[in-house]
Amino acid sequence: MPSDDRLQRYADLALRVGLNLQEGQPLVLSGSAESRPLLRALARSAYRLGARAVVVDLHDPALGRIDLEDVWEAYLDEVPDWFVQARVRAVDAGAAQLSLTDADPFLLRGVDPARLARRMQAAARARRPYLERVGAHKVNWLALGAATPAWARAVFPELAPDETTERLWEAIFATVRLDAPDPEAAWRDHVAALEARAATLNRARFAALIFEGPGTELRVGLAQRHVWKSAVAEAQNGVRFVPNLPTEEVFTAPDPERVEGVVTSTRPLNIGGTLVEGLRVTFAGGRAVELEAAQGLEAVRAVLATDAAAPRLGEVALVETPNPVFDRGRLFLNTLYDENAASHLAFGRAYPDTLGLAEGDDTALTAAGGNASTVHLDWMIGSPEVDVWGERADGARVPLMKRGRWVDAAR
Amino acid sequence: MPSDDRLQRYADLALRVGLNLQEGQPLVLSGSAESRPLLRALARSAYRLGARAVVVDLHDPALGRIDLEDVWEAYLDEVPDWFVQARVRAVDAGAAQLSLTDADPFLLRGVDPARLARRMQAAARARRPYLERVGAHKVNWLALGAATPAWARAVFPELAPDETTERLWEAIFATVRLDAPDPEAAWRDHVAALEARAATLNRARFAALIFEGPGTELRVGLAQRHVWKSAVAEAQNGVRFVPNLPTEEVFTAPDPERVEGVVTSTRPLNIGGTLVEGLRVTFAGGRAVELEAAQGLEAVRAVLATDAAAPRLGEVALVETPNPVFDRGRLFLNTLYDENAASHLAFGRAYPDTLGLAEGDDTALTAAGGNASTVHLDWMIGSPEVDVWGERADGARVPLMKRGRWVDAAR
Ligand SMILES: [Zn+2]
Ligand SMILES: [Zn+2]
Ligand SMILES: [Zn+2]
Ligand SMILES: [Zn+2]
Repeated sequence: MPSDDRLQRYADLALRVGLNLQEGQPLVLSGSAESRPLLRALARSAYRLGARAVVVDLHDPALGRIDLEDVWEAYLDEVPDWFVQARVRAVDAGAAQLSLTDADPFLLRGVDPARLARRMQAAARARRPYLERVGAHKVNWLALGAATPAWARAVFPELAPDETTERLWEAIFATVRLDAPDPEAAWRDHVAALEARAATLNRARFAALIFEGPGTELRVGLAQRHVWKSAVAEAQNGVRFVPNLPTEEVFTAPDPERVEGVVTSTRPLNIGGTLVEGLRVTFAGGRAVELEAAQGLEAVRAVLATDAAAPRLGEVALVETPNPVFDRGRLFLNTLYDENAASHLAFGRAYPDTLGLAEGDDTALTAAGGNASTVHLDWMIGSPEVDVWGERADGARVPLMKRGRWVDAAR
Repeated sequence: MPSDDRLQRYADLALRVGLNLQEGQPLVLSGSAESRPLLRALARSAYRLGARAVVVDLHDPALGRIDLEDVWEAYLDEVPDWFVQARVRAVDAGAAQLSLTDADPFLLRGVDPARLARRMQAAARARRPYLERVGAHKVNWLALGAATPAWARAVFPELAPDETTERLWEAIFATVRLDAPDPEAAWRDHVAALEARAATLNRARFAALIFEGPGTELRVGLAQRHVWKSAVAEAQNGVRFVPNLPTEEVFTAPDPERVEGVVTSTRPLNIGGTLVEGLRVTFAGGRAVELEAAQGLEAVRAVLATDAAAPRLGEVALVETPNPVFDRGRLFLNTLYDENAASHLAFGRAYPDTLGLAEGDDTALTAAGGNASTVHLDWMIGSPEVDVWGERADGARVPLMKRGRWVDAAR
């Protein structure tokens, strides 16, 4: 466990720079029971900032697994929404939402996939009213990492178990620049740089992006109404917040029908406990028509089989490398971190705000040329060996990234 | 930590003999995060019995203390009811309620008493709709002990910290007869014996009880409409259940105006972290008119100052000694256990069902001759040196307990 002092600094940074908790605002914290030391630091920090109330929703992942394995078949499709409704009421009362990302990436390994799918669907139905509100930014919210023993063992399988949690905390702290002389100032600068980058790209109005690197020759058409987004979001309550710590990306909506060529993933990805390595995808007319992988291909195929829009893209994100996440040189087995290591694509659903829309209306999303799939699967395609160009409507190309770094032309 | 096998047997006993969980009934478990191993065993056991769903409400006592100490003065009287309302919805949907009793008895030591009182009052207001439903036995419910390190250290201050939790588990298991050859059969016999005892006392219709022992010469008038209750309750959903494990008492409602004499407590009692020792109380006209104690008297006075009915009695309970709780020979610092060690009185509120009433109507409670105070403070007055008689309306006395044990005449 890190020192109380470092945990407290991490908590302060999260509430000030990330969540931007307002004086007099209630706060709901959620996380696994293993994360109590961080939750306590967050509660102290929140009260120091004048939180009206801090309510904590604790869960135990092992109980979640028991639920999956032991509930009778007859009740598998029913998940009570009592506690989800408590969180809905909290959001409707204006409470900020901070959820810890602290799960064991391999928690569900070995669970019967048919039971898992049914239970997950029932849980998603119960959670929908909550997730819709958060997705629509009804209040300021934050996803924040916390190292837990099971997660740390998965990330550092070669280390002695008692060293792993400490190592993961160090990695997490590094990704949020906690050891900068003034971490809060460092974050404000970083966020301003990402926002400036998104603004420049929005002015450029490229018709497509071109990626070139080892095993990659890809042209990603951008949606006509695409909007580049980055770190900052504005909630319906007027609070500007940074919903993810860390965040290194600028991202927008591809045209789900105009993606051509071949692309090779630059990092493995974890799909529910299965590691996919060496993924190579060929696109034609926006659709993934050919898939190869050195390992784990079936897990990708299962996701892409979810619905008709799943094998098409919903997000393209540019991430400069190196950066504090990439520098860890290792997979976190968690999207909050891994998607910030390098430029990436996502199969499936687009973020409505990357098409200038609010969350919640799939008809509008489709009409605006966005992907309305129910899945969203990020995978990394950037590295210090990959170049990126922006292509204008007239076919002229502007270099954006050389060997993973932004070139001045993009500024 | 006890072996998985013993925890599982404890969980099975609790759900079958205590809660009497029905096939197809949902279940809400609550307890501190320290008690996850027992909560997991309970969830497994519940699903084996065909629970429709098991939902777990975890809390962290340290977060409760941070809340008390750090919330701004302006917000001290506000406690959000979002999660209480989730439990209300669960009760209304028919979910059984199992709450672990696992708190650190000294958790709130040193908290500013004025802040504590205001915060407790606000929390009680928020919890009222839930507690009313449970008090009215809307569904079957259970209070069940679980050893936690902080509680165990308080109970066994003389032992090395790493031995205390194990010792407290052993004590808890002994109080519920877990090591009987067939614990479930032992419980059914024990419960039947308590029920028979209550039935006999109900037939006898005593006007008063007389207690005699070292420092005790007390006459406790019984309410005219008094009903003796014991282990079993029947919920509004028709399920018969044993709400407390352990339970050794038969109890009823005294007449708050007819208590005379002097009584000396036979065990210390813990009031929010203050230990009261050698409490000696003189009653006149039902009211405690004189109080002495070797230690902790102020804590008693504070409780009795709560309202006008607080210095009068609301419960008298007969507990045979020795018994498995008494045999531990030590204070558990927790009412669930300590009140089952010996015969006891309670200052304050009467249980409506000991006056033949349902919970929730204070006017009816007062009209029936019951104590409608807002507090309820149990204190032990029985021991193997105390004798108890029942006194009929005509003044005839029937011996009930000699040297702490039931005499045949009472059967
Ligand atoms: Zn992304
Ligand atoms: Zn994404
Ligand atoms: Zn009692
Ligand atoms: Zn009592």
